[in-house]
Amino acid sequence: MIQTKHAKKEKPVILVVNDDGVSAPGINHLVEAVKDLGRVVVVAPDKPQSGMGHAITIGYPLRLHKTHIAADVEAWGCSGTPVDCVKLAVDKVLHRKPDICLSGINHGANHSINVIYSGTMSAAIEASIENIPAAGFSLLEHSLEADFTGAKKYARMIVEQMLAKKADKHLCLNVNIPKGDAALIKGVKVCKQAYAKYEEDFKERKDPIGKKYYWLTGEFLNLEKSKDTDVWALQNNYVSVVPVQYDLTNYALKKKIEKDYTWG
Amino acid sequence: MIQTKHAKKEKPVILVVNDDGVSAPGINHLVEAVKDLGRVVVVAPDKPQSGMGHAITIGYPLRLHKTHIAADVEAWGCSGTPVDCVKLAVDKVLHRKPDICLSGINHGANHSINVIYSGTMSAAIEASIENIPAAGFSLLEHSLEADFTGAKKYARMIVEQMLAKKADKHLCLNVNIPKGDAALIKGVKVCKQAYAKYEEDFKERKDPIGKKYYWLTGEFLNLEKSKDTDVWALQNNYVSVVPVQYDLTNYALKKKIEKDYTWG
Repeated sequence: MIQTKHAKKEKPVILVVNDDGVSAPGINHLVEAVKDLGRVVVVAPDKPQSGMGHAITIGYPLRLHKTHIAADVEAWGCSGTPVDCVKLAVDKVLHRKPDICLSGINHGANHSINVIYSGTMSAAIEASIENIPAAGFSLLEHSLEADFTGAKKYARMIVEQMLAKKADKHLCLNVNIPKGDAALIKGVKVCKQAYAKYEEDFKERKDPIGKKYYWLTGEFLNLEKSKDTDVWALQNNYVSVVPVQYDLTNYALKKKIEKDYTWG
Repeated sequence: MIQTKHAKKEKPVILVVNDDGVSAPGINHLVEAVKDLGRVVVVAPDKPQSGMGHAITIGYPLRLHKTHIAADVEAWGCSGTPVDCVKLAVDKVLHRKPDICLSGINHGANHSINVIYSGTMSAAIEASIENIPAAGFSLLEHSLEADFTGAKKYARMIVEQMLAKKADKHLCLNVNIPKGDAALIKGVKVCKQAYAKYEEDFKERKDPIGKKYYWLTGEFLNLEKSKDTDVWALQNNYVSVVPVQYDLTNYALKKKIEKDYTWG
């Protein structure tokens, strides 16, 4: 990876990725929202990769192909996962680290426990591991025709600040935006990830030769009602911003099991 | 999900999963290590799923097929990811939550940042989200003929304590075991996840019709030298145990950006 000598004097390089695929409207909205803030380069999956979490491609090679997303924006489709896109963008497209990495705008929520399944957020987390400040943006509406006005407004507001202020070299923000009329959004809440989970209910069906198969469905259960969570913020029409980390160490439990367990 | 009335009086139900696939020697070693501690049920991917992280299968159905792993042990191959295996096992194989979920024994390390890419650890984390105490075990050797003596000894020692002591309903342990002679292992260290990453170096090749493709390779960089990390423990021939959490909120950064940023 080569850091170009004069990179810091030039326009910031903004890497844009997503998990819905390079042809999803959401990524186009994100590019539109930020494209005058720097040199935008898109490297995104060439097909939908929702729910891919932090998967990387081992044992198969990856492809990159030039594609089109908006005027004057370099864009590539990648055959891999959202995390693969970040790795390949740095090493083979940009040949340097971007100044910021933005992921989304996802069609659908990535609040609470969804952060862990989300390709959108995993791409942002991957960038933050590499000291690239990053943010993932998700709109709480799946429709391809969703109104992205509010999402674009808040994405731009947040990106401007990320470019202006060095909060942390591993800064990673999980931003979710309420659906509907942008004028009704009350503002932004910086939150913690709500403890929520899915109550799985696989639907059992039979194929034409009588063999069983299963479709994943489930009911979302929010198990934490406190006002400092992302779920609360979104239910009350605020944009939720959760700073996300990749250190998974549970320090409280570390102390507890050091004491309680016998380690031979 | 039906919790059977007398479940607590019966032998504990031990769900075993992995990411190397149901036919990998490592999962057989794990089953051998713990099978007299409870009723062991295996639900593992029907093919290698290394590097799948917390991916789940959306948009495609899943299959389960009965397979064989050891005498008297119920075993299923699943067409999905390691996390899919845990979800499907609870809902469609066990029809209840197991008392514990064990993942591995992985052929290869899952210390430091590897936890985030690891299907082995993601399966354990998925269980812990569901209030199922869980542990992932990884041996620092890829070979199919690796000596699992030490890994089996320490896995059993840890599982016995997990079954005996209720440390936490979300307990999730990332256990890595040094390779080589079990007699040389000095003991166990409860650690934090080392800050380490990969310096990616994609190898560019050309297919028979001249089009480029890329193979992921990279150099592991340990960026944290302190003695309380898993990498230090393993380098010094200790088994490393890192308690792992699924709350990705960065609380320190939450305070900082609440103060430093303008939220409009």
